[in-house]
Amino acid sequence: MIKVAIVGYGNIGRGVRSALEKNTDMEFVALFSRRSELLKREITDVPVFNSEKFSVPEDMRIDVAILCGGSKEDTPIQGPFFASKFNTVDSFDTHADIPNYFNQMDSVAKESGNVAIISAGWDPGVFSLERVLGDAFLPGNKNYTFWGPGVSQGHSDAARRVKGVLDARQYTIPLDGALQEVRGGGVRDYSKRETHKRVVYVIAQERGDQERIRREIMEMPNYYADYETEVIFITKEEMVKNHSTYPHGGFVLTSGVTGENNRQILEYKCQLESNPEFTASILVACARAASRLKEKGQKGAFTMLDVPPALFSPQSGNVLRSQFM
Amino acid sequence: MIKVAIVGYGNIGRGVRSALEKNTDMEFVALFSRRSELLKREITDVPVFNSEKFSVPEDMRIDVAILCGGSKEDTPIQGPFFASKFNTVDSFDTHADIPNYFNQMDSVAKESGNVAIISAGWDPGVFSLERVLGDAFLPGNKNYTFWGPGVSQGHSDAARRVKGVLDARQYTIPLDGALQEVRGGGVRDYSKRETHKRVVYVIAQERGDQERIRREIMEMPNYYADYETEVIFITKEEMVKNHSTYPHGGFVLTSGVTGENNRQILEYKCQLESNPEFTASILVACARAASRLKEKGQKGAFTMLDVPPALFSPQSGNVLRSQFM
Repeated sequence: MIKVAIVGYGNIGRGVRSALEKNTDMEFVALFSRRSELLKREITDVPVFNSEKFSVPEDMRIDVAILCGGSKEDTPIQGPFFASKFNTVDSFDTHADIPNYFNQMDSVAKESGNVAIISAGWDPGVFSLERVLGDAFLPGNKNYTFWGPGVSQGHSDAARRVKGVLDARQYTIPLDGALQEVRGGGVRDYSKRETHKRVVYVIAQERGDQERIRREIMEMPNYYADYETEVIFITKEEMVKNHSTYPHGGFVLTSGVTGENNRQILEYKCQLESNPEFTASILVACARAASRLKEKGQKGAFTMLDVPPALFSPQSGNVLRSQFM
Repeated sequence: MIKVAIVGYGNIGRGVRSALEKNTDMEFVALFSRRSELLKREITDVPVFNSEKFSVPEDMRIDVAILCGGSKEDTPIQGPFFASKFNTVDSFDTHADIPNYFNQMDSVAKESGNVAIISAGWDPGVFSLERVLGDAFLPGNKNYTFWGPGVSQGHSDAARRVKGVLDARQYTIPLDGALQEVRGGGVRDYSKRETHKRVVYVIAQERGDQERIRREIMEMPNYYADYETEVIFITKEEMVKNHSTYPHGGFVLTSGVTGENNRQILEYKCQLESNPEFTASILVACARAASRLKEKGQKGAFTMLDVPPALFSPQSGNVLRSQFM
């Protein structure tokens, strides 16, 4: 049994717990959280530690800690801290900072003799893998990633920061025109506005503020200004009733030619009713891989690109070769 | 530069040559063929050796031999023979025999200190990888593979063996009903007849034989009897004009639930204008991986499931982390 600790108990942490129940070679053995005192009332089957100061009993084995906090404030601190003690898996998803974070985790994990799989999940993670495979198999290709339809946490948060907004939920919608063009073999460059639109459901504090809020969201640089954005005002009841789940998904397309101009198109697609649960499920498969890499004598930081795919699988090599090839 | 030899010069061998031109870190250095005397007239830029008896000059370096023969007669012989001398990549695709072939290649390659990547291509190969990832990320899933629309060499050959058939080309067509059901979250079992149909274009020697030929094809066990099969008689001119390319493709779908019954659907799809050229392009990426695995001190047999995906890529780890994650 691979003994797994969960660090952070939000949507992803809860998803990891649920995924561990479906993976019979793994076992949930401990929870680390900043809210440990509170969570001790909810979680009674495993010990709950404070994630900032704890002492794990000597005789307690933890093979892998899965870090389920946010990429902005939690993982940059918790990553190096936990990698100095255990094998780790995290879903650090600030794309531009991945190279630095990798180097930092690599040096901590090499020092402690642990394996740290960073930036796992579906994007970064599985989508990264599909981009790399497409690029390797079709040199000179054009590669496209479309996201959605689904809820973007970052864009929802940005809309929530506008004055007078009580709550907001943003849906990213891939535009069918560009998607169908690429599927049909098109390889031109697209502006952001041509590939995605954004729909934001907002609860406004005051009805009279709606036009200002709409304008401020639509003009927000980086997040909204470059896209066709629709802002829809709803009530608190409608928000709870219609927007309390986290669907998401997306597409990675690689279009290339081989030989005498033969067009080859690869497409990976996921449709997720629960984004955090799918991310969690991938993190659990990565925990299995981290534990196996460590057993093979490896140490340091890895992305999903560096892991032999068979190590994610609960099946033996023989079963994979006889039933999955 | 990774120095590559091609063994066998049919559609896949020619595809490998063309793919090597697009991979600037690799170089075509030698051709091995049973028809070496004939091919020496066509291939003048690299030495051409007889694949059954040859002596490669002492000072000639070959990093990887890509085996491009057929899985029935060529690869089972050429695999162990070439793996005893060089790193190898092959596309051995007799699914049921893969475990035995793996064991045989593993022992030869371990003995010679080489790396042998077996059963590479898109199925087995990339599709195998997608089946394994889907299974690892969604435990308790249902997994579906659909093939086509495209030309199946094996089924074309089978139709050609019917008495009175001068030539035949078989197209495998995935049935949209089942595909849409799975995409919509359906997870039932399908009969062969529900997932694919087969269309065979045939040139008959005698017009009077057509009904017998049609019946013999449609009733052929394993190949046709279990499917809705349509047999269409055409002229030699129509065959050349409309059926001289090798398009193919297919779909791998994994459908699973996480948490409280949240449906998660993963789909990998490829649409290929040239099946042999895409296979060849994957074999070339595998040759890069074989050479790197050997450099890392590895030896023995590998499938694509055992190879860290970054090793397929011409990009450095830093570029992958900064531009592909």
